[in-house]
Amino acid sequence: MKLDLEVVDIPVAEGTNVIIGRSHFIKTVEDLYEALVTSCPSLRFGIAFCEASGKRLIRKDGNDDELVEYAVDACRKIAAGHVFVIYIRGGWPINVLNAIKNVQEVVSVDVATANPLKVIIADLGEQRALLGVADGFKPLGVEDEEDVRERREFLRKIGYKR
Amino acid sequence: MKLDLEVVDIPVAEGTNVIIGRSHFIKTVEDLYEALVTSCPSLRFGIAFCEASGKRLIRKDGNDDELVEYAVDACRKIAAGHVFVIYIRGGWPINVLNAIKNVQEVVSVDVATANPLKVIIADLGEQRALLGVADGFKPLGVEDEEDVRERREFLRKIGYKR
Amino acid sequence: MKLDLEVVDIPVAEGTNVIIGRSHFIKTVEDLYEALVTSCPSLRFGIAFCEASGKRLIRKDGNDDELVEYAVDACRKIAAGHVFVIYIRGGWPINVLNAIKNVQEVVSVDVATANPLKVIIADLGEQRALLGVADGFKPLGVEDEEDVRERREFLRKIGYKR
Amino acid sequence: MKLDLEVVDIPVAEGTNVIIGRSHFIKTVEDLYEALVTSCPSLRFGIAFCEASGKRLIRKDGNDDELVEYAVDACRKIAAGHVFVIYIRGGWPINVLNAIKNVQEVVSVDVATANPLKVIIADLGEQRALLGVADGFKPLGVEDEEDVRERREFLRKIGYKR
Amino acid sequence: MKLDLEVVDIPVAEGTNVIIGRSHFIKTVEDLYEALVTSCPSLRFGIAFCEASGKRLIRKDGNDDELVEYAVDACRKIAAGHVFVIYIRGGWPINVLNAIKNVQEVVSVDVATANPLKVIIADLGEQRALLGVADGFKPLGVEDEEDVRERREFLRKIGYKR
Amino acid sequence: MKLDLEVVDIPVAEGTNVIIGRSHFIKTVEDLYEALVTSCPSLRFGIAFCEASGKRLIRKDGNDDELVEYAVDACRKIAAGHVFVIYIRGGWPINVLNAIKNVQEVVSVDVATANPLKVIIADLGEQRALLGVADGFKPLGVEDEEDVRERREFLRKIGYKR
Repeated sequence: MKLDLEVVDIPVAEGTNVIIGRSHFIKTVEDLYEALVTSCPSLRFGIAFCEASGKRLIRKDGNDDELVEYAVDACRKIAAGHVFVIYIRGGWPINVLNAIKNVQEVVSVDVATANPLKVIIADLGEQRALLGVADGFKPLGVEDEEDVRERREFLRKIGYKR
Repeated sequence: MKLDLEVVDIPVAEGTNVIIGRSHFIKTVEDLYEALVTSCPSLRFGIAFCEASGKRLIRKDGNDDELVEYAVDACRKIAAGHVFVIYIRGGWPINVLNAIKNVQEVVSVDVATANPLKVIIADLGEQRALLGVADGFKPLGVEDEEDVRERREFLRKIGYKR
Repeated sequence: MKLDLEVVDIPVAEGTNVIIGRSHFIKTVEDLYEALVTSCPSLRFGIAFCEASGKRLIRKDGNDDELVEYAVDACRKIAAGHVFVIYIRGGWPINVLNAIKNVQEVVSVDVATANPLKVIIADLGEQRALLGVADGFKPLGVEDEEDVRERREFLRKIGYKR
Repeated sequence: MKLDLEVVDIPVAEGTNVIIGRSHFIKTVEDLYEALVTSCPSLRFGIAFCEASGKRLIRKDGNDDELVEYAVDACRKIAAGHVFVIYIRGGWPINVLNAIKNVQEVVSVDVATANPLKVIIADLGEQRALLGVADGFKPLGVEDEEDVRERREFLRKIGYKR
Repeated sequence: MKLDLEVVDIPVAEGTNVIIGRSHFIKTVEDLYEALVTSCPSLRFGIAFCEASGKRLIRKDGNDDELVEYAVDACRKIAAGHVFVIYIRGGWPINVLNAIKNVQEVVSVDVATANPLKVIIADLGEQRALLGVADGFKPLGVEDEEDVRERREFLRKIGYKR
Repeated sequence: MKLDLEVVDIPVAEGTNVIIGRSHFIKTVEDLYEALVTSCPSLRFGIAFCEASGKRLIRKDGNDDELVEYAVDACRKIAAGHVFVIYIRGGWPINVLNAIKNVQEVVSVDVATANPLKVIIADLGEQRALLGVADGFKPLGVEDEEDVRERREFLRKIGYKR
């Protein structure tokens, strides 16, 4: 069977983060909506989901039209059955990832990032598979003691660690 | 090193759903059995797991011989170490996915679907890797307001959303 | 866009297990440390994480220098943004996997194993994606009734099942 | 302040189980409904919840009118703010407890049982507190080796343990 | 042994919610801090915890001095070993309850509310036990169809349900 | 109905911790065993559970006879239906609490402690209810800045926090 590897560029607008995963069932859209809306009052988000059978539509929801549009655009480019894409603003992936992982029909989460992002797709014609993600850039070296000190201070300065 | 990409067709019989994931340790078979049998009284299921060392056997269990046979056949075709396959009937993935995700030695779930399914494999000779899944078909468009209304009504008609 | 498939060999030293996953955010290193150190008093471990932006350093932590070095070496070879690698000794993946899956910024776990391990990478130049893992070897057959009996006895002899 | 201890008898009809817990927020009713309806296709259930402020009504939902009525009756007798009561049939608490514990606004579960049940209440007048539950009867002795054998065989005969 | 039942009034200031639970180990304070600070960017909170051995001090942390003071005051009044109290503002219990329930040393959550709250204590002298909570007021009736409609509309108007 | 409040002293031997909770169903004993045995290789433990109907026996299991005996003795004294008691050594509650909370039939955990412990029981004759626990001693004051510094240093010295 013919298989083409394809690299899809997913733009991540300034001030947003994108989360991509795989789910099961059209109910995903409403359940992700509820998982996100109950996560933090300030969160703005858009969700899109590639329905994989029946009408085969990109399903969508959210509380911010621009972010919904971003999510739909990303689904159009990925175009692989049962993949979902979420864009968020006014909050961070760390605020919502556990809630997303616990949604009953979510199968897996592939990436959460604000970095330049590429998705590797296997194209089989009418069927497409998400194989992996290139999230940001490859490392340039190993942290030294000064880098460790800076990292630990940074996390405490932003108040995320005590 | 030589790497061949292979597309494996996984048949999903009428009335069944298939769940594929990766785990760690031969105990997976019994733990998945217990996670499934305690999920809902009506569930029929078959489990198979690709043991990756030692005797390297496809391990199996279940409460329905036909579904066990389906799962073993899928493992024979995928043939990648530590992959598991579950077929279910008399219940839906949504009934069991969180229980499966919580099994101690389960690493990840790759797909849950009743759609035509293809698994992308990297074949290295004696070692094989599951790279991704093509679950159903790529989307044909974006839902409009009427589609949204239908989707929301459908989920309420089947009683899954209020 | 140019995409090269690469097979990376990840050595797993005698008496250790390796766990590879993907996360989000530099806080991962400290959070994985705390998830592991609270899992069992006897656990020795090393963690490394491929920072994907900014300084792009391999971040590291642990309570065993040799295992930290193994983890850093594995990250150097994988070199894909937001991938983490953990080596453990004095405990087993089953002791820690659920704690790792529950860490807020962990996106997914790709593998946990003591088997010969190869990681399939898509190299795009400055960006690299983890596509899958070849964990141990492909199966040689299907278990028969005697194999089932042995498997079940083994799990009870080591005390993991009643 | 005056505090009266009160013992409330909660009838558990043949073929049903009752689950009592405490939650936060009127959204509980719909969220418990969705957690239960997605647990197993055969489950019949009724939910009631003591709203603790505003209109202070017993809120209710379910897919079986008789079980809803049981749940409302139990809430009337307990009459303590933010307590919920669920009756189920066609399934068992083990099928649904983890889903209930994971509902975002559920604070705790106090009991799940088919045994004769009494709830201990502290009555302060307009405010009432659930203090504990007497679930079935006190033990009569300690199991001996023959009892252990029987217990283990029973769990395997019903297929819940391997 | 002498046992006095005591009713402790816990004030809940306008615009705040209080969460009370039980934990194990002095590490609770930092772990609750991290669970809360990663929940939503807007959340203000104060935590206090009744250390039950050693120095037996009320331990405290938070990102809002007034809320920390409220939590300390509530712990002073409850004064039962291993009880913790959290006050929040700029967010809701639904945003943080699952994160709190998942903290490794948290044993249980007893209440989350903005209602008038009383805690029932058993006083044994140097030892005190939290027996239960009276959260808001007892119900005045059962919702009718119009109340159901209003409830469902309200949850959709605030955007918590679709 | 007659209700007697009773204070039960639960001894916690040097070097052990006790965990008390409530569950549903005789399967609890084996499931707690498996949750504990997979938590850390060094853990020694004993479990007992008050069966609340049928033969009404104290069910028990474990990998350390002395700790099983402690757990049985505690159940004899508490003697309330569906209560379980676990004693551990060679590990800490923090190593096992999340695994216990996730056991399907566990309803709640009431306490985990190495402190002097008393359990408050409501005795109704043949039925008994666990109302609460007095875990260690009431606080003597509020920590000052020096106490905070010591607390934070202590957690870092034992390696539990970074």
